[in-house]
Amino acid sequence: MKNLLENIEEILLMGPGPSCVPPQVYKALSQKTLGHLDPYFLMIMDELMEMLRRIMNTKNKLTIPISGTGSAGMEACFVNLVEPGDKVLIITNGVFGMRMQDVAGRLGAKVDALEFTWGTPAVPEAIEKKLRQDSYKIVAVVHAETSTGVKNPVAEIGALLKGSDAIYLVDTVTSLGGIEVMMDAWNIDALYSGTQKCLSCPPGLAPLSFSEKAMAKLNGRKTKVPNWYLDISLIANYWGKNRVYHHTAPVNMIYGLYEALYVIFEEKLENVFKRHMESYRALVDGLKNMGLKMLVEEPYRLPMLNAVSVPDGVDEKAVRQRLRSEFKIEIGAGLGPLAGKIWRVGLMGHTARRENVERFLAALKKVIGK
Amino acid sequence: MKNLLENIEEILLMGPGPSCVPPQVYKALSQKTLGHLDPYFLMIMDELMEMLRRIMNTKNKLTIPISGTGSAGMEACFVNLVEPGDKVLIITNGVFGMRMQDVAGRLGAKVDALEFTWGTPAVPEAIEKKLRQDSYKIVAVVHAETSTGVKNPVAEIGALLKGSDAIYLVDTVTSLGGIEVMMDAWNIDALYSGTQKCLSCPPGLAPLSFSEKAMAKLNGRKTKVPNWYLDISLIANYWGKNRVYHHTAPVNMIYGLYEALYVIFEEKLENVFKRHMESYRALVDGLKNMGLKMLVEEPYRLPMLNAVSVPDGVDEKAVRQRLRSEFKIEIGAGLGPLAGKIWRVGLMGHTARRENVERFLAALKKVIGK
Repeated sequence: MKNLLENIEEILLMGPGPSCVPPQVYKALSQKTLGHLDPYFLMIMDELMEMLRRIMNTKNKLTIPISGTGSAGMEACFVNLVEPGDKVLIITNGVFGMRMQDVAGRLGAKVDALEFTWGTPAVPEAIEKKLRQDSYKIVAVVHAETSTGVKNPVAEIGALLKGSDAIYLVDTVTSLGGIEVMMDAWNIDALYSGTQKCLSCPPGLAPLSFSEKAMAKLNGRKTKVPNWYLDISLIANYWGKNRVYHHTAPVNMIYGLYEALYVIFEEKLENVFKRHMESYRALVDGLKNMGLKMLVEEPYRLPMLNAVSVPDGVDEKAVRQRLRSEFKIEIGAGLGPLAGKIWRVGLMGHTARRENVERFLAALKKVIGK
Repeated sequence: MKNLLENIEEILLMGPGPSCVPPQVYKALSQKTLGHLDPYFLMIMDELMEMLRRIMNTKNKLTIPISGTGSAGMEACFVNLVEPGDKVLIITNGVFGMRMQDVAGRLGAKVDALEFTWGTPAVPEAIEKKLRQDSYKIVAVVHAETSTGVKNPVAEIGALLKGSDAIYLVDTVTSLGGIEVMMDAWNIDALYSGTQKCLSCPPGLAPLSFSEKAMAKLNGRKTKVPNWYLDISLIANYWGKNRVYHHTAPVNMIYGLYEALYVIFEEKLENVFKRHMESYRALVDGLKNMGLKMLVEEPYRLPMLNAVSVPDGVDEKAVRQRLRSEFKIEIGAGLGPLAGKIWRVGLMGHTARRENVERFLAALKKVIGK
């Protein structure tokens, strides 16, 4: 049998994730494996937690990577914090808000969805009204809706929840490392992310942080967390002072995430954000010059995930396939009601560079003949 | 801040996992990341499934790596197959049987444990008697008890279950790739493993396979699987013909597992098993010459996980620490009732080589002064 790994081409990853990985991170992934209880590995874990706190802007002790992809972060937040019968408000304007409803519903939550049109942001006034009408144990929202390219007003929603008993749960899978995330200042109690978007580490881990308030809800549960693997009270004993074995940590993926954060802080976070914004502006200018339109209104757009309307008469799938086969560029398709209507062009992490934007624009021009 | 990854030492991993990783697998981990829906990556997935079927000796269509460590494999088996109120028999003679009880109990199973003394194997006659007394929806056992070094009679238990309605669920985390695993011939319906033991890939994925009978139980559920992330009916759509996006697969870890299996089949599975047995015999001979005793009786021992009784008057922790700091060798401690009483010496996958056994024996001799 031929070994397929010998012929992997380098693809410019401009889809909704994974993003391009810097050479230092690839190198980190192939460092010698240590035992998951090795004293040197425990030092790496400590520094990794510190870097995660720094990028999330939190002082939360429980700030760790979950041993699964971004979706495992979502699962971990809900399974630890939802008790059967809890009323949960899920602010929804895309696939990932819908997914939250499914995840929470399976765990016995009474899910109330406040829906906004896909491609538009959640509206704080409507949320405020909803919160006056009913009380919730958990209020959840997606910061950066990867399915539409919309940024939700996470800070404003957090301000509405100040002083409330509700746990504020936020998905930052696509935002973390690309735009500002201020976990403590925004009153967020439970936050998760993924490694494969703006952190530019391959998929496999889900950074997660719980506030003291979230930990108190977890510790006050009447029933055990119905998921041994993701039980944060057990995992915290491994990442905490006691270092009690829970499951074997994904050692080399943890090296990768350590290095990915190290690279970001070397460049400086504000420079990384600036690079994302500049790449986004160059992309939008180029698309505009080609007569293409963005799905989302300007003030609500994410720099790292751009929903581009497919022009009438263009075969959107054929365009993606030609970009991949001929130009070695990956972009994403629309999901759900947006399938066939948009392309999703990612400018995440290491991908967010002017030269990549120019390469993509030139390729797209050739493919759609503009 | 200093980058800790620059000073990772090469440790000879002779604990209960992770094991040493061959250079080809390190290289595979750092191959260029592809998109999780990229046509070339889908080919890699197909071949990986085929290699997993081959090493498990199964024809099961649903044979995939779960995006989490070995414990996520355990969680995935139980959460998909247990419905609240199901009677589950768990054959227990170590930590991982105990863990199965915890996992299944959290999911609402009525758990019945059939316990055998730690360090001894499960006895088929006792299981047969138990099965006559009561009927179970699921019967679960650990093939290779990593906490004690005991091999359980998985084939014999499977023969007892022939023709029964019960789902037969087996943990092969430590056995797969080191000794024979015959999923179909042994009537196993649900099997999981980990990558970091005899497969010699770093931790992060859990190979899993479900028989048609297990799939039928899953598809006949009255309630949704209370775990979106590990819902096999959704994951099967991503690994199956439809390639429907579920979660972003851990692409580079999948490269690593592909290569680890490739390396095993290049050496030939029978040669790999032989290498494990030869290393084990050399280890036991050497330990015997030093006057050390094994915990487990000879016929029930695992070649890849050796429980060595700590001699009276020896500080077991100090020995492990000196082996690590002075000789760069990791071995494992005892767990639960065996803490302080045994060392666990792993000879798993790439670690299972005569030169490693000799290096360990020489180091141990110096440390305990024999």
